[in-house]
Amino acid sequence: MKGVQRGVNAHGVVLLLVVVVLLQKAVLGRPLQLQQLTAVTRPSPKDTAAFARWLVCQSSWGVLSTIASDLGGAPFGNVVSFSDGQPDKGSGIPYFYLTTLDPTARYALKDQRSSFTISEHPIGTCGTKDPENPSCAKITLVGKLTLLDGNSKEAELAQTALFTKHPEMKGWPKGHNFQFFELEIYDIFMINWFGGPKPLTVEQYLQADMNKVTFSF
Amino acid sequence: MKGVQRGVNAHGVVLLLVVVVLLQKAVLGRPLQLQQLTAVTRPSPKDTAAFARWLVCQSSWGVLSTIASDLGGAPFGNVVSFSDGQPDKGSGIPYFYLTTLDPTARYALKDQRSSFTISEHPIGTCGTKDPENPSCAKITLVGKLTLLDGNSKEAELAQTALFTKHPEMKGWPKGHNFQFFELEIYDIFMINWFGGPKPLTVEQYLQADMNKVTFSF
Repeated sequence: MKGVQRGVNAHGVVLLLVVVVLLQKAVLGRPLQLQQLTAVTRPSPKDTAAFARWLVCQSSWGVLSTIASDLGGAPFGNVVSFSDGQPDKGSGIPYFYLTTLDPTARYALKDQRSSFTISEHPIGTCGTKDPENPSCAKITLVGKLTLLDGNSKEAELAQTALFTKHPEMKGWPKGHNFQFFELEIYDIFMINWFGGPKPLTVEQYLQADMNKVTFSF
Repeated sequence: MKGVQRGVNAHGVVLLLVVVVLLQKAVLGRPLQLQQLTAVTRPSPKDTAAFARWLVCQSSWGVLSTIASDLGGAPFGNVVSFSDGQPDKGSGIPYFYLTTLDPTARYALKDQRSSFTISEHPIGTCGTKDPENPSCAKITLVGKLTLLDGNSKEAELAQTALFTKHPEMKGWPKGHNFQFFELEIYDIFMINWFGGPKPLTVEQYLQADMNKVTFSF
């Protein structure tokens, strides 16, 4: 009986998606965007690890903070694009495509201490909630920002992840010497509901089983 | 003749706005949102100071980075709402409404070194550009994050600025002891076009004459 219910729910979700696509196309005459799709599949805030992975996977940019060695050691946040894998197949590990023409890469090569911060707001699933409202989620991944060896398997992974999500990157000037970086996470801060940050270890985050997620509509 | 041209241009802008409003209402049945309006009044990227002020004034949230004293001094970015004044009357100085229940306020009270980072992407004026594309603007204001005296004139200013832009804040729990903070800016990093960060002093930024702005359509 439970299996049947699950089947019905799955059909319901697919039907809802089709209706949304048709409505969107009919009204606006343009294809459905990722942020509208994800509104349907947002995990329940109670599924802490899965929610965190969903937030990272569905986002395309955030703020990468490093230590500004030339500004008295100030924490320096910089807007960057990122990817943790191909769409809907994220690993949870954020990869970046940075050039030392930009201060963030220069700072990281001197001091790896870093954090990467994402808001749920740009995904489009916060409705009219204020971005600082605890039920509009935010996550900060604290870690070491590491340059990947250009010939490594991981750099290859990073390239696939980034170029799939950010096709424009393929054409960025070769002369600017963009390189692949990874955030080696050692601490996670996430708020996705009232009551303060959710306890979440890096292991729980990386091992989240996205197949056992409950969805909130 | 030049005056006449200016007059015609001004009328053109107003007419364009009216058409956009009517189209929006007709198609979607909901009022025009701020981000659509600002698409019309984006200053030319060449007007560096005015562009920076526009970007700050039209944004409602960003990432505030401080030094995480309990995480080995890592730079810790946190999503926060802010305001630099009433809509379209910004001062350029970002104000925040923070509680020490959240780590950012606690960190700032120990070490004021901070930066505040905004992307143009959420405003809606980057089109299909990647958020890391230099023509999709980003700004980082580096400074000291300072707690305002609750009885000061500046705290009153901060309250008006924040509560006007973020009406939800008025109802946030009194028991959480939210307080007003200001970023005392001492360095500005902004990219809004190709060719690297734009030279911009704090004085130029604060004194930008928003009446002499040229617009890019």
